[in-house]
Amino acid sequence: MKNLTLKDIALALGLSITTVSKALKDYPDVSAKTKEKVKAYAEKVNFTPNAYAAFLRTQESKMIGVVIPRLNHYFFSNVLRGIMHQAEANNYMVIVLSSEESYELEKKQVAKLVKQNVDGILISIADTTHNLEHINRVNELNIPLVFFDKYSKLSPSPSVIINDQQAAYMAVNHLIARGKKNIAHLRGPLLPQNSIDRFLGYRKAIEEKQLTYKKEWIFTCENISSDDGYRYTKHILEHHPEVDAIFAVADLPAIGAIKCLNEYEIAIPEQMAVMGFSNWGISALTTPALSTVNQPGEEMGASAFDLFLAEKERLRKGENSNVENIELATDLVIREST
Amino acid sequence: MKNLTLKDIALALGLSITTVSKALKDYPDVSAKTKEKVKAYAEKVNFTPNAYAAFLRTQESKMIGVVIPRLNHYFFSNVLRGIMHQAEANNYMVIVLSSEESYELEKKQVAKLVKQNVDGILISIADTTHNLEHINRVNELNIPLVFFDKYSKLSPSPSVIINDQQAAYMAVNHLIARGKKNIAHLRGPLLPQNSIDRFLGYRKAIEEKQLTYKKEWIFTCENISSDDGYRYTKHILEHHPEVDAIFAVADLPAIGAIKCLNEYEIAIPEQMAVMGFSNWGISALTTPALSTVNQPGEEMGASAFDLFLAEKERLRKGENSNVENIELATDLVIREST
Repeated sequence: MKNLTLKDIALALGLSITTVSKALKDYPDVSAKTKEKVKAYAEKVNFTPNAYAAFLRTQESKMIGVVIPRLNHYFFSNVLRGIMHQAEANNYMVIVLSSEESYELEKKQVAKLVKQNVDGILISIADTTHNLEHINRVNELNIPLVFFDKYSKLSPSPSVIINDQQAAYMAVNHLIARGKKNIAHLRGPLLPQNSIDRFLGYRKAIEEKQLTYKKEWIFTCENISSDDGYRYTKHILEHHPEVDAIFAVADLPAIGAIKCLNEYEIAIPEQMAVMGFSNWGISALTTPALSTVNQPGEEMGASAFDLFLAEKERLRKGENSNVENIELATDLVIREST
Repeated sequence: MKNLTLKDIALALGLSITTVSKALKDYPDVSAKTKEKVKAYAEKVNFTPNAYAAFLRTQESKMIGVVIPRLNHYFFSNVLRGIMHQAEANNYMVIVLSSEESYELEKKQVAKLVKQNVDGILISIADTTHNLEHINRVNELNIPLVFFDKYSKLSPSPSVIINDQQAAYMAVNHLIARGKKNIAHLRGPLLPQNSIDRFLGYRKAIEEKQLTYKKEWIFTCENISSDDGYRYTKHILEHHPEVDAIFAVADLPAIGAIKCLNEYEIAIPEQMAVMGFSNWGISALTTPALSTVNQPGEEMGASAFDLFLAEKERLRKGENSNVENIELATDLVIREST
């Protein structure tokens, strides 16, 4: 049976759509008599609003939930764009939540999405997430879940990531090829896999070429901000004048480094080269423009959505979750800072 | 009656939550017998998944839809953050859609949100939106709708905006106070009210001080991009050497201008001052740092959500929509480029 709309009811009863809508919502500016008439008719024809009628028929909400760690973030905005483009093409709506890098908020948000009957969850976990019970619970309920960018090795869910270690290794090798010998690293927080992997790629490149590796040249950017980069670069200039290049875990700290070097009139890249990671739009606009690693955000978002569809289909067919981990290619973007 | 959960059914039947969930979704790896048992019980206790049960009881979905013109955009990301923060505090979920500045996509997305039974719509209209039938339809259905930033004077819905004309007027007066006499304007597209208002503020300041106003010094940034700013600044240097300041409709074109001036070794602000608009995070990080107008994104988002709640309450009480237009204060952020 065709699902009736407000318009159908309005036509049948000779009322306006507005009145029908108000009557169903019990608004006080509709007379009791009209309300009764509308409600009786709605019950008779078994009227259910569109989305709910569809859900009850198909057990699908055609909504997915996306949990990102930060909202105002060039890379995650690009990922969201990729997700939304695929969602639009496949007739899904996207509920977006930002965990603000908080494990507690992330747990709460995942629970809310489950309660909302989303058809799937796409998530990049917070820097502070140290326990995966909330993710495991989603798996138990047979709700497809896909990680992107920040994942956990402890969960069997499919993921779309880049090879962070390999990308960092390439970036540092580029600095070495430019003749740099004393390379400092502005690393990310300790927990997330991607900041660990970028650090490991840095160390591998340094050790392989038998360059100096010093713990005092490693700085942890807790907020991955330009302020972090600015502050540590100032510290490097004051305490480690032998350092001739900086490899940062992300573009924002690298841009903070450039800001600091410009203020101290240090020639970039001659006296100090700077390498970022992620290729934010801003990185082409600094003076000098920043060399960086291109991290394909939109492609990552689109792949994550496609993995969700595949996972959903597998679950529907009762097949075992055949965990797919997609590793997207990255490349170096060489500009003026190296 | 308390609404039953999957867990309640699982306990009652001695099954796992996973099995109950799979049975209700008709997954093939659950036996026909178990499915029958679960479905019969679910029907008996009138089981409806959480979100839908709540909706049928309250006629509220506790979801709002937000339509923004661009996703990867510092200002709109900040607005979204403000909206989401308030939504979280008030127990609402947020469906996010990006119109990509397309009128056609915007129409389609508004229709989808209506179909999804959202409790309200927060929207910043696309640069190409020239017709408001889709907005009027939302009003007819008594679904609260609130504009933020880019609104239309033709619709009676409440809005949260800034006084763009006043802000631009202040910005240009600041350039004049710095001794600049020949001020070019990189304006936004022709349709949106905010780019019209910023242009009007620019012209008002110029005319009031009886400075030269020339059509040849006005350039339209169709994409409001750094490329637009770079290209027009190059044109200004080549064809209008008398220009001594640039006021841009937004930070990205202003940053493109700085990039170009640095390449041509034009002293900023001595030979050419540059003023942006919006105060993106990036504007503090260019060399020299950009002077700009601070546009309070998070505050705008939070106010838009609050207006939605107020509008919803008014509609529920059957009061006439008492259109509120909130105008948020802006201030100048003076850095090195002026």
